[in-house]
Amino acid sequence: MQFSSKLLEDAVNEMAQLPGIGKRTALRLVLHLLRQPEQQTIGLAQSLSKVRAEINFCQSCYNISDKKVCEICSNPNRIGELICVVEDIRDVMAIENTSTFKGLYHVLGGKISPIDGIGPQDLKIQSLVNKVKSGEVKELIFAMSPTMEGDTTNFYIFRQIQDYDVAVSTIARGVAAGNELEYTDEITLGRSIQDRIPFETSLKS
Amino acid sequence: MQFSSKLLEDAVNEMAQLPGIGKRTALRLVLHLLRQPEQQTIGLAQSLSKVRAEINFCQSCYNISDKKVCEICSNPNRIGELICVVEDIRDVMAIENTSTFKGLYHVLGGKISPIDGIGPQDLKIQSLVNKVKSGEVKELIFAMSPTMEGDTTNFYIFRQIQDYDVAVSTIARGVAAGNELEYTDEITLGRSIQDRIPFETSLKS
Repeated sequence: MQFSSKLLEDAVNEMAQLPGIGKRTALRLVLHLLRQPEQQTIGLAQSLSKVRAEINFCQSCYNISDKKVCEICSNPNRIGELICVVEDIRDVMAIENTSTFKGLYHVLGGKISPIDGIGPQDLKIQSLVNKVKSGEVKELIFAMSPTMEGDTTNFYIFRQIQDYDVAVSTIARGVAAGNELEYTDEITLGRSIQDRIPFETSLKS
Repeated sequence: MQFSSKLLEDAVNEMAQLPGIGKRTALRLVLHLLRQPEQQTIGLAQSLSKVRAEINFCQSCYNISDKKVCEICSNPNRIGELICVVEDIRDVMAIENTSTFKGLYHVLGGKISPIDGIGPQDLKIQSLVNKVKSGEVKELIFAMSPTMEGDTTNFYIFRQIQDYDVAVSTIARGVAAGNELEYTDEITLGRSIQDRIPFETSLKS
């Protein structure tokens, strides 16, 4: 791509480093900003710099937070003995949106994935194990994505804590709401039959 | 979407103002930046601010340029009497990539589109007409996209300059290289038969 301006080229190259944004899209975005009031670009640049410089992670659960301890961890109405283990802060947001979970979270910051060079030491696993060892946790809920990496991560953590007095559960896997049964893959469908629940229980949710 | 951090929310909202980027994608992009070295975010923010603040348009053809007159317009080897009229600077880049055009450009900055509230006065049409009136132009090539708005813009400009001594042409429309004939729409196919060229001429390109 030949640029008529070095400034434009620099901006496009920086923008194209974002995941899923190629050079053509980057050019479209930068040209869009050039057509908008200058204040929009300044606002974008400032808020990105600010979030990167001042970002803070909750020292207990590693969720993104503006305070040292996040609002969930510091909320006295939440059940501190129940911890939901998630991969990413987006998963915290997704579960919070359901308004069904009243415990705390522990954000691992990824999942074990040897192919991407991510091992247990790159994740916040040790601090989770320490929480369990200290005896303050009664139940862990694994809420990783149902992929090979997610299962590996779950199993790795389970091995570290299985000798301690803590209940370990994993979120239910089954047919998603609104899905057609005939298009559900066989692993999911098989599991949903194996892990069937009493009909009366299902009426309550 | 519930955010655990105001800084994060601000950055996501700013990012989501870009065209084609929704809140979820914006969150993914911002979280990606947070995982990268701080220098990447600083580089992105600075280059965006810089291009927006210092951007300059060629005073002759309105292409983006770091100088007052762009490199194409100031190149003595280009044919100043031949002007290709395009909608956007991306079109200049696309045509330059073909290395077939040796004239100059005139970037209108859009096309006449009443539905979007864009009239002739919002585009760089008057300065193009002035160039023609001054007698310095021998041929204009319309290279707008073949849409209703593009055709309208072409026709509007043509009406302004038809009394002056200037040749006006438009880029050829026809079946694109590599396209299957049976999937070509009937307007394009009809035009390609109507505007057929001698076979010997086609061998030269």
